[in-house]
Amino acid sequence: MASSICKHAAIAPSPTTFRCNRIPIHRVYLIRNGRPAAVRCSLLRPEYIPNHIPDPKYVRIFDTTLRDGEQSPGATMTTKEKLDIARQLARLGVDIIEAGFPASSDADFEAVELIAREFANVDSDHVPVICGLARCNKRDIERSWAAVKHARKPRIHTFIATSEIHMQFKLKMTPEQVVEKARTMVAYARSLGCEDVEFSPEDAGSFNLNWILVAGWDGLGVDHLDVHKVAIVALSDREFLYQILGEVIKAGATTLNIPDTVGYTLPSEFGQLIADIKANTPGIEKVIISTHCQNDLGLSTANTLAGAYAGARQVEVTINGIGERAGNASLEEVVMAIKCRGEQALDGLYTGINTQHIVMASKMVEEYSGLRIQPHKAIVGANAFAHESGIHQDGMLKHKNTYEIISPEDIGLLRSNESGIVLGKLSGRHALKAKMLELGYDIDGKELDDLFSRFKAVAGNKKNISDDDLVALVSDEVFQPQTVWKLEDVTCGSLGLSTATVKLIHANGDEHISCSVGTGPVDAAYKAVDLVVKVPVTLLEYSLNGVTEGIDAIATTRVLIRGEDSVIATHAYTGESVNRAFCGTGASMDIVISSVRAYVNALNKLLGFKNRLKTEDPNESKVIHTL
Amino acid sequence: MASSICKHAAIAPSPTTFRCNRIPIHRVYLIRNGRPAAVRCSLLRPEYIPNHIPDPKYVRIFDTTLRDGEQSPGATMTTKEKLDIARQLARLGVDIIEAGFPASSDADFEAVELIAREFANVDSDHVPVICGLARCNKRDIERSWAAVKHARKPRIHTFIATSEIHMQFKLKMTPEQVVEKARTMVAYARSLGCEDVEFSPEDAGSFNLNWILVAGWDGLGVDHLDVHKVAIVALSDREFLYQILGEVIKAGATTLNIPDTVGYTLPSEFGQLIADIKANTPGIEKVIISTHCQNDLGLSTANTLAGAYAGARQVEVTINGIGERAGNASLEEVVMAIKCRGEQALDGLYTGINTQHIVMASKMVEEYSGLRIQPHKAIVGANAFAHESGIHQDGMLKHKNTYEIISPEDIGLLRSNESGIVLGKLSGRHALKAKMLELGYDIDGKELDDLFSRFKAVAGNKKNISDDDLVALVSDEVFQPQTVWKLEDVTCGSLGLSTATVKLIHANGDEHISCSVGTGPVDAAYKAVDLVVKVPVTLLEYSLNGVTEGIDAIATTRVLIRGEDSVIATHAYTGESVNRAFCGTGASMDIVISSVRAYVNALNKLLGFKNRLKTEDPNESKVIHTL
Repeated sequence: MASSICKHAAIAPSPTTFRCNRIPIHRVYLIRNGRPAAVRCSLLRPEYIPNHIPDPKYVRIFDTTLRDGEQSPGATMTTKEKLDIARQLARLGVDIIEAGFPASSDADFEAVELIAREFANVDSDHVPVICGLARCNKRDIERSWAAVKHARKPRIHTFIATSEIHMQFKLKMTPEQVVEKARTMVAYARSLGCEDVEFSPEDAGSFNLNWILVAGWDGLGVDHLDVHKVAIVALSDREFLYQILGEVIKAGATTLNIPDTVGYTLPSEFGQLIADIKANTPGIEKVIISTHCQNDLGLSTANTLAGAYAGARQVEVTINGIGERAGNASLEEVVMAIKCRGEQALDGLYTGINTQHIVMASKMVEEYSGLRIQPHKAIVGANAFAHESGIHQDGMLKHKNTYEIISPEDIGLLRSNESGIVLGKLSGRHALKAKMLELGYDIDGKELDDLFSRFKAVAGNKKNISDDDLVALVSDEVFQPQTVWKLEDVTCGSLGLSTATVKLIHANGDEHISCSVGTGPVDAAYKAVDLVVKVPVTLLEYSLNGVTEGIDAIATTRVLIRGEDSVIATHAYTGESVNRAFCGTGASMDIVISSVRAYVNALNKLLGFKNRLKTEDPNESKVIHTL
Repeated sequence: MASSICKHAAIAPSPTTFRCNRIPIHRVYLIRNGRPAAVRCSLLRPEYIPNHIPDPKYVRIFDTTLRDGEQSPGATMTTKEKLDIARQLARLGVDIIEAGFPASSDADFEAVELIAREFANVDSDHVPVICGLARCNKRDIERSWAAVKHARKPRIHTFIATSEIHMQFKLKMTPEQVVEKARTMVAYARSLGCEDVEFSPEDAGSFNLNWILVAGWDGLGVDHLDVHKVAIVALSDREFLYQILGEVIKAGATTLNIPDTVGYTLPSEFGQLIADIKANTPGIEKVIISTHCQNDLGLSTANTLAGAYAGARQVEVTINGIGERAGNASLEEVVMAIKCRGEQALDGLYTGINTQHIVMASKMVEEYSGLRIQPHKAIVGANAFAHESGIHQDGMLKHKNTYEIISPEDIGLLRSNESGIVLGKLSGRHALKAKMLELGYDIDGKELDDLFSRFKAVAGNKKNISDDDLVALVSDEVFQPQTVWKLEDVTCGSLGLSTATVKLIHANGDEHISCSVGTGPVDAAYKAVDLVVKVPVTLLEYSLNGVTEGIDAIATTRVLIRGEDSVIATHAYTGESVNRAFCGTGASMDIVISSVRAYVNALNKLLGFKNRLKTEDPNESKVIHTL
């Protein structure tokens, strides 16, 4: 059994491998302050074989932040943003990255292709599989393959609806036709040269829900009755599920993904479903079973763990748990639960995730998707490690590990009061880089240069530069789209009517100045920007967050806009055309400047999409619905 | 068996009771458009007997938003806010309200007492139990009783640490001494006349965590080793747990609450723990078992359901899942999971919650606690019902119920495009009230009057008044502290240096005007406010949210401040003194006015606490630590 080697091993004087129970541990030592210090390193990752995992206890992490997560309202990401996230997912050690739905739009295709190429020739110990979604039709599968084939490890993920109601109304096909379609399309994907094909029965895993009347009074007709929803599982559904899964295995599928599409099952039920599939599907031992759990009842993490315990060896998750409605199982919760409890309570299961990159991934996805996580979000919320309960003050400092099941360091978050690095206006680039690393941001090159010059400007005006100031700055500097328009200056006055004057510089160097009145300084400034940029948009959301240590701290603004002549993509499950929305953020010590930066960035993102589309055949940007 | 009658029954022409399987259904009809329409109504609620539930399938909902939830960083609530929430919890049909920790501070005592008195003489079909927390000492129990005894159904909830490490380091007591303390304090609570006493072994339920070395290399000392956390459950811990629970039952406890203090257990384990306690604790059949699950791994809802399935008949939850770190199991998730799946997957369990009041409760707690929920929060998040996936457009409209496991109406949220009520500047009070009810806000009296005048002012300036505008207005108008200072006017200019002038009016009628410069208009205005109010505070957080339909919409600002000469309370579990923080919100079409309103409101909240304390013996505000 070949194994990839931890990256850190290269700099370790004496790597040693331990083995405890079933889990191989790879430990690496770094020199710190003249003496060796142990560095937590991921467990040995078994060799990647599409339909088989050499170690039966290893669980593959399939991240679908870029596909399912990006489907959240307003979470549209640019190609650059997707590539940034893909790189961070690779750092995390994710096994499979679902990079998008290439048939959705040209922009989606381009992003998947770029990510696939990114991982074509990487000289790394771990290269993630790059996966593209496709409906069960030739065109989708061809587009998906054309996008992912450049990757070192490409995968096509195809799906079809299998519940009776979907087959009848959405597909207008008989069950036999659905099986035939699934079988032939999986075989077609294999025939293109793709050796790694995942298949999802879109809704068969989620049980077949029906409304039945609990109370038998029907005098007013069904519409007026108080009905009680009850899920029933018809045996025929299960038998059909085993049948279609068995057929796609024969056709060459390597992973079978079982979604809980409506987030309705309880952990015991979902575990049983996976166990039943494992027990009853012909040929199941030749493939990997996967879970994909929605969070509508807040049970996605528990369902995912129950699925893994019952035999699934791939789990589909998203960073921060983003996704449509209540989102998906979140990577950080599932991974940390397996890390903390795998050995004792989950039969020795483990993953290949380097958890120290979780915080950076979480922050990046929060910035790019515009989906803010709540302060009490498990693992990555702002309060997750804020212990108001001061056990420490009770003479129990030595035992604090007893109370923290996960230490901040485990997920890449250093406590600032323990870090020892304090930045001031004399601090250099190296100190800034070290500090950002402590905060979970691993940045370098031009991004670091730009951040450093912004940092110097702020340090000149503000005595204490807090961690939050730095986070705001890095978000403004690092998490930005390519520039079409750049804000040069904004002045405003609000004695009587609010007025604002803005100066914008186009990428071609032209300067544009305009002014407008409005109901407030931000409104006036936005109207002035509109006079220059001349793109009709609707402002969907606007929010501004100041941070600690007084109102003179840096304020971060986030806006969400939608273009009126829209940027269209196709929704994976419905085939519906979706009008994309774009999120932009900006940061400044002045809230008006911060607000205008955010607006200009959102416009840049939208213009980036529009300009790209314009250079190609306009018909290409519309997807033909074939099924 | 006596049963309370649904409130709606009073206006129903012909209430009828159905019985299906084990669940009694009470159905009530209202006349709508001249014909009767069925109204969903809560199930019959069994009579309240402290240590016994006549229907073995009924699960009591114990809400601790006001106690455990309020311990979240920055979530401090005023007495008025707590009373508002308590009333909303009663409307929801919560069985037990944990109103606070009376020994924590005089403000906490006052709030619990006020809530207890509120429910002393209510002429309602359902009166919640009012519960006060107390450590295992005479003074805490006396304070708790003094606060809750006014309620129609008072309860004392006392707790003590029972893990070896806590007993040894925090309590400095032997296990025998701990059992004796628990036994005598439960008996003492009963001796005061309290017939309803809950006992929690603070951490016995959460297993005893230990660090053990997975790899045996110890050359660098334990601090430098990469250790692997493993939870071990020593048999002695379990035996001790059964023993102490058995003793407090003998002493008169009526409910035994089992916390998962560190949120570390998996559903299967937590269910087993409850089953083991049920099987092994002497006298357990005479009491109710309760769960209290933290959310550190995102498993609190699943653990709570597993506990109920295994025999717990009280579940401790908070609205929106707020609480320290990653919070607690959230009421809405647990209740909706039981509602949706109780009959089929949870052995027929049901609760007495009227789920149509969930949205209002969620919004109220979000406003008062300052803890924003994420858009993909299950059940109550902004996106929870935002279906981008347009199944509806696929000719499947008739079957949409198949895809929505919970309809927005179930939790009190009407879809605005179905409501039919559109507000304009000619709309009257009645239309406003009806619209607010649709949005989940049940307001009346002076609050409605004030909201109506604000609404009229906005309607004069803005053509389309969106639902979000109304929500911002109602938050600003309804969710506010008592006024000490009122903002009359603010003007600002930012040509060159930012300057702001504010006019504030004190509750005694005095007008104060001041001006200041600052780094931006808000900074300048806040400094001007400081010159008038003269209370040294630290601004901990500042955030501003605009809403849909352009930047001329109403912006909501939220600030969090902490007074420098602080308002102190005692933390329940640690005995530590906590310096309280206060949250304020404001709304306006001008972001500067919105920001200053929020700041003044937060100051009013802080001043309300300080003034109250000043009128009493200053020593009283500090709690003497006795245990």
